[in-house]
Amino acid sequence: MSSDEQFMQLALAEAAKGGSATWKNPQVGAVIVKDGQLLATGYHHQYGQAHAERDAISKLSNEQLAGATIYVTLEPCFHYGKQPPCSQLLIDSHFARVVVATIDPHQVVGGKGIAQLKAAGIDVEVGLLKDQAEALNRHYFYFYRQQRPWITAKQALSLDGKVAAAPGQATAITNQAARRLVHQERADYHAIVVGAGTVLADDPRLLCETPQLFPPVRVILDRAGRLLDYQDRFVFTDASAPTWLVTTNRAATKVDWPAHVTVKLLQNGDWPELLDYFKEAELQSLYVEGGPAVLTELFQAVPVNQLITYLDPQIIGDQGLAGAQFPAGTAFTHRTVTQLGDDIRIDERNDE
Amino acid sequence: MSSDEQFMQLALAEAAKGGSATWKNPQVGAVIVKDGQLLATGYHHQYGQAHAERDAISKLSNEQLAGATIYVTLEPCFHYGKQPPCSQLLIDSHFARVVVATIDPHQVVGGKGIAQLKAAGIDVEVGLLKDQAEALNRHYFYFYRQQRPWITAKQALSLDGKVAAAPGQATAITNQAARRLVHQERADYHAIVVGAGTVLADDPRLLCETPQLFPPVRVILDRAGRLLDYQDRFVFTDASAPTWLVTTNRAATKVDWPAHVTVKLLQNGDWPELLDYFKEAELQSLYVEGGPAVLTELFQAVPVNQLITYLDPQIIGDQGLAGAQFPAGTAFTHRTVTQLGDDIRIDERNDE
Repeated sequence: MSSDEQFMQLALAEAAKGGSATWKNPQVGAVIVKDGQLLATGYHHQYGQAHAERDAISKLSNEQLAGATIYVTLEPCFHYGKQPPCSQLLIDSHFARVVVATIDPHQVVGGKGIAQLKAAGIDVEVGLLKDQAEALNRHYFYFYRQQRPWITAKQALSLDGKVAAAPGQATAITNQAARRLVHQERADYHAIVVGAGTVLADDPRLLCETPQLFPPVRVILDRAGRLLDYQDRFVFTDASAPTWLVTTNRAATKVDWPAHVTVKLLQNGDWPELLDYFKEAELQSLYVEGGPAVLTELFQAVPVNQLITYLDPQIIGDQGLAGAQFPAGTAFTHRTVTQLGDDIRIDERNDE
Repeated sequence: MSSDEQFMQLALAEAAKGGSATWKNPQVGAVIVKDGQLLATGYHHQYGQAHAERDAISKLSNEQLAGATIYVTLEPCFHYGKQPPCSQLLIDSHFARVVVATIDPHQVVGGKGIAQLKAAGIDVEVGLLKDQAEALNRHYFYFYRQQRPWITAKQALSLDGKVAAAPGQATAITNQAARRLVHQERADYHAIVVGAGTVLADDPRLLCETPQLFPPVRVILDRAGRLLDYQDRFVFTDASAPTWLVTTNRAATKVDWPAHVTVKLLQNGDWPELLDYFKEAELQSLYVEGGPAVLTELFQAVPVNQLITYLDPQIIGDQGLAGAQFPAGTAFTHRTVTQLGDDIRIDERNDE
């Protein structure tokens, strides 16, 4: 591994420290090096706070910065967002060289940061450890390139392919390790999506394992407005995460909901319309937890990027509620199988 | 571990060398020790050949044997079967001590061997490593205790619980490692059971991975006699294992079948009648490979001892043929989950 790669690897490790706290922003890391010596590292800690470049630069004097190299996992921003642009900051810091893992797919950056640096006479290299840098922000890259959210479907099945002991009956299919992992992986998404049937049957919390600065939105698909008579459900009474009630029932807009509940009235509420709505709302990623009717409809309607199946080898029996049905030809390019005690996690996804 | 346990452990390892070549006989091992020194080991090599005790004894002189201890994993036989009784041989060899792992459940032995040894003044101990000894011959013990064959059901499922791309269409669900393991584990059973539908759709070979001295009988359940028009199927033309055609269609008895094909005419062919037939035929163990109609009926009709599921995380889609349906309450006491590359083997069984 070249020293350039080693420093970029370090920048990637820095980036990952941001985790889900960067929310709508990508996770970005930066490493400053001069004469082969590591001078400072930095990362984007949290949405609304300093970018990675600024975080690293703030630790050094002007003299240290002049003539140094900065490794950054994403193209420096060019626009005034929550922060002044980083491209200008790099120029003002008199860096001799900027090594960038990958171009920012966001329309307001998209190579302009690189162009400005080059115009200022800085030696700029782009593409080092690009794949790793993009994998770190998979949902972000997908959203801005494809102009739609990354969709992950999640199901929990018994050995005989059931999701509940009977329709409408809350049933814990998986073991504790699997449930805990679900609660952890929710934090990687901007929204958790379930149908009204799941809220009626399970009254789920739809929260992450640990409290999040920016918890995923709990999106409840309730076209008919079946939940208007069930305003005591956890997602409507607990304010620790936003709840969006997506419906075609105008009566839902007349309810005096708590502040954390938003009603979105749609024309027909089908998946193409839903995706337009999610895109407009800048939800970069969806974790669709079902039930089976929601998942079956999802797979029929739009391409799904990832399917995570938790399988518990118990037998529910022929009275059980069957899992989602998938259209013929449903297939994924990557697959990872993991054992969690007696349970099994099967993670399948497609190339972007 | 005591030295008694160590010697019995060695006898168990000897026993296992017999493998499926002992066929209807149990796997048995013997170890002869004198003054703390290991003198000889032996095992039952093959159905029709010498028993383990005789195999070990044959390696030693009368002088060596006199006053020695023999460790044997199963009660010495008392009856003239294929071989003269071992209990008398042990007496004639002047053993001072006989350590037996467990009593033979076969009705013509059942403790009588032990009684004869004790009556001859030999020091006899019974029960050392009993559980391991019985596990080694699980099917044998079950058959003679419960007077019915051990039933293992096997299924191969896709992630969405399908067994074929469409009804009647041959579909390789699992990967090569899984298929190979199926072909290996067939050798542990006295019969492989499938329905006529499987023979029509897949034209399977139903053989073991390596040629067996006593290959499992290929039992074809064909109540209606649908296969009378398909005498070109592999199981009817290939003579490397017996094929039993179980039917209620009298016309099957009029066909001039090859010598390896036996027709068994039943009244109605339901599972209780089948089990009576299998018991009478001394099939100690069944590996029921399906299809889904056969498995669904099996689980509804009689207790099933073991269920082995091979799961391949591909998606077949909603046009696929669904796997077996299980009655509510179907459950097993033991479970082992194993990864085979991307495939998963789930082995569930009940206590005997």
